[in-house]
Amino acid sequence: MSDTESVAVTRSLAEYASSADLCDMPEDVAEIARRSLVDTVGVTIAARGDDAVGILRTTLGGELPPGDATVLTDGTLTNARTAALVNATAGHALDYDDVTDLTYGHPSVVLWPALLAAAETGRRTGRELLEAFVIGFQVQCAVASGMAVRTHYGRGWHSTATIGVLGAAAGVARLHGLDVDQTRCALGLAASMAGGSRQNFGTMTKPLHPGLAARDAVFAADLAGNGFTADPDQLESALGYFAMFGDSNDLTAVEKTLQTPWALTAEGLSVKKYACCYCTHRTADATIDLVHEDGVDAGEVRSVQLTLEPAGFDPLIHHRPTTGLQGKFSAEYVIAAALLDKRVTLATFTDDAVQRPEAQQLLRKVEVDEQERPPVGPAQWEQAYAVVQVDTARGPVTKRVDVPRGDRRAPLDRDGIEVKFRDCVEFSGSGIDADALLTQLWNFDTSTAFRGFDAVRSAGTAA
Amino acid sequence: MSDTESVAVTRSLAEYASSADLCDMPEDVAEIARRSLVDTVGVTIAARGDDAVGILRTTLGGELPPGDATVLTDGTLTNARTAALVNATAGHALDYDDVTDLTYGHPSVVLWPALLAAAETGRRTGRELLEAFVIGFQVQCAVASGMAVRTHYGRGWHSTATIGVLGAAAGVARLHGLDVDQTRCALGLAASMAGGSRQNFGTMTKPLHPGLAARDAVFAADLAGNGFTADPDQLESALGYFAMFGDSNDLTAVEKTLQTPWALTAEGLSVKKYACCYCTHRTADATIDLVHEDGVDAGEVRSVQLTLEPAGFDPLIHHRPTTGLQGKFSAEYVIAAALLDKRVTLATFTDDAVQRPEAQQLLRKVEVDEQERPPVGPAQWEQAYAVVQVDTARGPVTKRVDVPRGDRRAPLDRDGIEVKFRDCVEFSGSGIDADALLTQLWNFDTSTAFRGFDAVRSAGTAA
Repeated sequence: MSDTESVAVTRSLAEYASSADLCDMPEDVAEIARRSLVDTVGVTIAARGDDAVGILRTTLGGELPPGDATVLTDGTLTNARTAALVNATAGHALDYDDVTDLTYGHPSVVLWPALLAAAETGRRTGRELLEAFVIGFQVQCAVASGMAVRTHYGRGWHSTATIGVLGAAAGVARLHGLDVDQTRCALGLAASMAGGSRQNFGTMTKPLHPGLAARDAVFAADLAGNGFTADPDQLESALGYFAMFGDSNDLTAVEKTLQTPWALTAEGLSVKKYACCYCTHRTADATIDLVHEDGVDAGEVRSVQLTLEPAGFDPLIHHRPTTGLQGKFSAEYVIAAALLDKRVTLATFTDDAVQRPEAQQLLRKVEVDEQERPPVGPAQWEQAYAVVQVDTARGPVTKRVDVPRGDRRAPLDRDGIEVKFRDCVEFSGSGIDADALLTQLWNFDTSTAFRGFDAVRSAGTAA
Repeated sequence: MSDTESVAVTRSLAEYASSADLCDMPEDVAEIARRSLVDTVGVTIAARGDDAVGILRTTLGGELPPGDATVLTDGTLTNARTAALVNATAGHALDYDDVTDLTYGHPSVVLWPALLAAAETGRRTGRELLEAFVIGFQVQCAVASGMAVRTHYGRGWHSTATIGVLGAAAGVARLHGLDVDQTRCALGLAASMAGGSRQNFGTMTKPLHPGLAARDAVFAADLAGNGFTADPDQLESALGYFAMFGDSNDLTAVEKTLQTPWALTAEGLSVKKYACCYCTHRTADATIDLVHEDGVDAGEVRSVQLTLEPAGFDPLIHHRPTTGLQGKFSAEYVIAAALLDKRVTLATFTDDAVQRPEAQQLLRKVEVDEQERPPVGPAQWEQAYAVVQVDTARGPVTKRVDVPRGDRRAPLDRDGIEVKFRDCVEFSGSGIDADALLTQLWNFDTSTAFRGFDAVRSAGTAA
């Protein structure tokens, strides 16, 4: 750890968070942030009826502590910590929120709930909220670059939370206008609150992790702002964050990443277009293209051949799914649903939808295979590929997709984001006016005193 | 980790917590628990005016969420999570709470705040509260025995919190009457909430660690009781608690420790008799004995020679202290104060007390030394020793202490505990009636529906 201590990481991050001048933020950076906000709020609202969210709400009690921050799933007002906890848990409950390769995790689902709650209660401008997001994302990337994230993840840590809490604490500190020393304490406090075990994946505790991280980020910044102390060189010191959580850290990379402007464009965000395992997304894209570009109809399908890269089926273990959750991890079902419905939505993954006889019949026509060399197109592929070959009476039709829509290399445009958003709001049964809320979301950074979203507060509480 | 996964640790701990029959608890076990409660409540109340507690209270807001659990420092009623958070932070703020060697940490300051809050809100009997403490302590010891705790601690983890949260979650689960499966989830949830970095020692974040652990133990058990899910085999699985936090685990020891009855008598609790570094306790005992047994008076002292074991002065770095906090880490000042005041209390460590001219003069007469072989008595010593030799006009007088009073090998009796307790309550300025509270504390396990302590509620809120 000797090399660890020589780099003043905590101070660098705090100086950046408290005093970085983001006046020259390019429009494409701001636009990625806006799309991330729309997407994060959408998937949060969609989880309104989720069991994890319901039990969490019950446990917190009927009457939440008073405050000015909005619980997005039901429009209740409460304090910032509690709103951050519920919103981030809901935001991850459907596992439908965005991801970033570098952090090996979900960045926005920790950042936005913490920042929205802090901004609402602190009456910050929309522009300040936007900048806090950019700062929090940059800090997440900087921390991740200093840590061997895959080793960290491999040991069992849920990096979405362990790294997310630091980025969110930095962002909230910025919104609160904390100075460098206070921000160093906020980061030191957040380091003592970081945690989350991957062994709990597949249970309700997984979405609770970003919930706890968002809550703790707000708590850490609030405490530091009130004068609570922590080690000002916490992260890089011998018994601190990197020593505890990392195994082969390179802290010189932190500063480097921090000073590389606009990680949001350099690293990018991958937005999930479909409410199912990311490993089914190429397959879904290819099937939907067959339907819409080649006019393939479910009724004419005699058989389907799906080929993925080696290990591509590792998470897709449900070849004969019977529940909605299993359907999310079934390439066969995703193909059947896309052929039948001509789209894949949140409603695609209800138990009823998966149990439809026509879907069950169709998914049995799908044969799957893994091949190092794709059966069509170039032999090369980067991360993964999907080839869907459909045999029909009028002959075979084939599609290959390497980069799924929504991936950072092929980001969704506003229309694509809105389609998903509207599906999320409809699925929630919240009665929220999606159009009104979209207008408020797309324009959030123009508000002079950010007060949350009226469209959620009014419709949310009424429903 | 292959040996890790073969032992059903989570199930064992949950079965023990939910169904262990403690009807045959020996009286000496119950008595250790009672003394621990008195001591923990005393040091908690003493921290009423501590900065960490004050800032935490400010940050939580003037109006705490409603509930039936008592904040011991000010008598406010709030929900169990919040009371556990504030009480455990206060309980550790003066670093004056009890310790256990096996867990390498402070067991009671996580357990009691979590259990008291859960019992108050759940209307459990005093006997159930007592049993929950015994169970929580046993679980802490079992977890610690499965983990190489010194390695864990050496990496930077604050075991008081990382191990404490599991024991406290088990105890709260017992109080709530959770079944085995629910308790397994409570432990799995607690594993995802565990954290706390030693790099923050020496700052306000250190006492916050048990605060967070006590809060999280209550939260985990509450969530599990409401049906929230976590991995039922969390702790021993490949990406779970022991894999994340330990480096050379021996999970077979967990079951063994769990089944060895009454860790409270086998391992014991060491209670701090003085509000200063534990490494000054032998020195304080020896000096006080010189005063009371040999009639040594400060005025007749010409010089003092203090000898400790090798490395005995490592934490005692303040040879010429000028503040109260420095005085806690100064053997010279502790000797001077004991000679002047004939006792060592919380008031011994105010800035004013340390700055007294007579104390400053006297502490300069103390010479210190480290020797492998003690200058008097047998050459052997176990953990440490202190020899205080005072030169007076009537000749030299000498005392040697190897086992300090309050150590698990020489536990304080009720009188000794009460002396410390009264000093704590007086120091708090809370106006609490120490006698009335002591009566309630000594008899807590006889109550048929535990409702907290009237003596705190009434006087606390008024002050």
